[in-house]
Amino acid sequence: MSSWKDNLRKTNPYVPGEQPKLDDMIKLNTNENPYPPSPKVREALDQFDESMLRLYPDPASAELVDAIAEYNGVKREQVFVGVGSDDVLAIAFMTFFNSKKPILFPDITYSFYDVWAELFQIPYEKVPLDENFEVVREDYYRENGGVVLANPNAPTGVGQSIQALEEIVLQNQDVVVIIDEAYVDFSDLSALELVRKYDNVLIVQTFSKSRSLAGMRIGHAIGQEALIHAMNDVRFSFNSYPMTRLSVAMGVAAIRDTAYFEETCRKVIATREWTKKELKRLGFTFGDSQTNFIFACHSSVPGVVFFDALREKHIFVRRFANQPRIENYLRISIGTQEEMQKFIQEVEQIIENVHGDSHKK
Amino acid sequence: MSSWKDNLRKTNPYVPGEQPKLDDMIKLNTNENPYPPSPKVREALDQFDESMLRLYPDPASAELVDAIAEYNGVKREQVFVGVGSDDVLAIAFMTFFNSKKPILFPDITYSFYDVWAELFQIPYEKVPLDENFEVVREDYYRENGGVVLANPNAPTGVGQSIQALEEIVLQNQDVVVIIDEAYVDFSDLSALELVRKYDNVLIVQTFSKSRSLAGMRIGHAIGQEALIHAMNDVRFSFNSYPMTRLSVAMGVAAIRDTAYFEETCRKVIATREWTKKELKRLGFTFGDSQTNFIFACHSSVPGVVFFDALREKHIFVRRFANQPRIENYLRISIGTQEEMQKFIQEVEQIIENVHGDSHKK
Repeated sequence: MSSWKDNLRKTNPYVPGEQPKLDDMIKLNTNENPYPPSPKVREALDQFDESMLRLYPDPASAELVDAIAEYNGVKREQVFVGVGSDDVLAIAFMTFFNSKKPILFPDITYSFYDVWAELFQIPYEKVPLDENFEVVREDYYRENGGVVLANPNAPTGVGQSIQALEEIVLQNQDVVVIIDEAYVDFSDLSALELVRKYDNVLIVQTFSKSRSLAGMRIGHAIGQEALIHAMNDVRFSFNSYPMTRLSVAMGVAAIRDTAYFEETCRKVIATREWTKKELKRLGFTFGDSQTNFIFACHSSVPGVVFFDALREKHIFVRRFANQPRIENYLRISIGTQEEMQKFIQEVEQIIENVHGDSHKK
Repeated sequence: MSSWKDNLRKTNPYVPGEQPKLDDMIKLNTNENPYPPSPKVREALDQFDESMLRLYPDPASAELVDAIAEYNGVKREQVFVGVGSDDVLAIAFMTFFNSKKPILFPDITYSFYDVWAELFQIPYEKVPLDENFEVVREDYYRENGGVVLANPNAPTGVGQSIQALEEIVLQNQDVVVIIDEAYVDFSDLSALELVRKYDNVLIVQTFSKSRSLAGMRIGHAIGQEALIHAMNDVRFSFNSYPMTRLSVAMGVAAIRDTAYFEETCRKVIATREWTKKELKRLGFTFGDSQTNFIFACHSSVPGVVFFDALREKHIFVRRFANQPRIENYLRISIGTQEEMQKFIQEVEQIIENVHGDSHKK
């Protein structure tokens, strides 16, 4: 064996939800939006001059940065864009977490955080959520190399109040606090106001969920200028032109169509609330999701039974089989109202089948 | 000052060529292709179902990987794709260069190599090219952490023979040897055959130059399966979905249109050879460029004089002012035949003006 293999970087790659391709599938496993992107996106595609593709994009993605800044009422120097929020978070980890002290994040949260920590050799500690999947804020009042909180959290769907987050920020003024708001548009929990008051708070958002553009890979961060400047220095030490010309054009078209965005979010939220009632009726328990998914477990039927039986019907949900605290839970993305009605029907059938079987025994 | 600033990663970002936006400009500063991408790219844009953008892309970008594998006659497991060859190279550096020994690359080469080395804290040594900008292969016959060679080299345009590269590979069997072939389609120097014989050779190519798709950010690497597998482990520890759905669709359309690709390369090469003759006539010296640019200096007029005077005429070329060995050189990308005729006219005028001025003194 060649010794070049001795010098490979140690990794433990993230495993994303699968991307099956079946015509009749109901795909509730990767928290995508069930509605297409704004019609303005098609217009932008049609109007796009493909001869421009021979040229590199603007390294600063200024058009997109400006549109995001305008939407959020911040300066362009406060906005960083990347290839989805995964890229934004990876660069933030690389930029800010170079202390020998451990960074802190919940034991149950986006499972990419520890993957990035391993990749960049950042020490980390997982802080247990309480039994209701709530953050115990006092657990973050100690020396650390940084704090990462998804809010609302994934895969739990549970959100913390801005007041709770602000108390954690106040106790952590010497490190960067990242608030990952991938799902925030389905809630009223954005901590954007903290950016105005604190120079160490970085808000990360994405076009993948609420803007229906997962396929175009657009994420962004908002923070005070010094934070964004430091991230851009790392960005431009890695790749000069991260965003495709079409990502910029599609992103600008999407964020400017506020009416479509708000209507889509309203529809997803309405279907989520309907689904909550139905799941409760069928014996599920779950936190008060403020996202486009529900993280639920059943009083008598194991998660794996639902997972496998739904899969046979080409309904895909997500399960975290190798995390003992949550192995019995399903993470169910919110589809269209019709898709969720079909989903609930199948779930009801599965429960009947299991109970029927157990009666027979 | 908050102490979070003490934990920022140290960087020295790459500075790309500027992207001016002037209607009448002749842009010969970033080695873009003067011709638009294949007409199949427009067809793919028109046929693209934008409702699919709500879904994440295939993490493996299998369609694009398969098209590249087919074109190059290798297995899909031998192909890695990334967001331009910068992304591919950054991930290769992170994956393979984790030794305490220095990696080696020429003193005059793509100036991103030392930026990545700094970013990932990889020790490195720059090995001087000889006075003709040729690689002195014996200089690479010593202990090191890896070797990186751009071939043909940038910004010099000079290429090494496959035999020379193979000798370097033979002397470096215990480290990964990266051959950066960004410009290879304008030469006949591809070292792809070395991949079949050596498990430690990684070839990196791009759609940005010869395929006219700089704006879509598509690069790729070809190597034996173990190399590609290791890179994918790092990739999927950084970002699960690096390539946009449109990058995949455009890339597939472009690589399948071999006739258009070959015609475009032929035109660029013909104009390059014409430009060489003209530059020689005007008193320039340069190596035998096998790329889509010429790296030249003049016998009597300093590079900065051309650079500034051309800029006033909205003709943009590239200069490396802070690299003493090459500060007098211009890197001139090959434009259309018409653009290069205009460029040569202006250069001729600049030389006349300078000599006229000096006669007056």
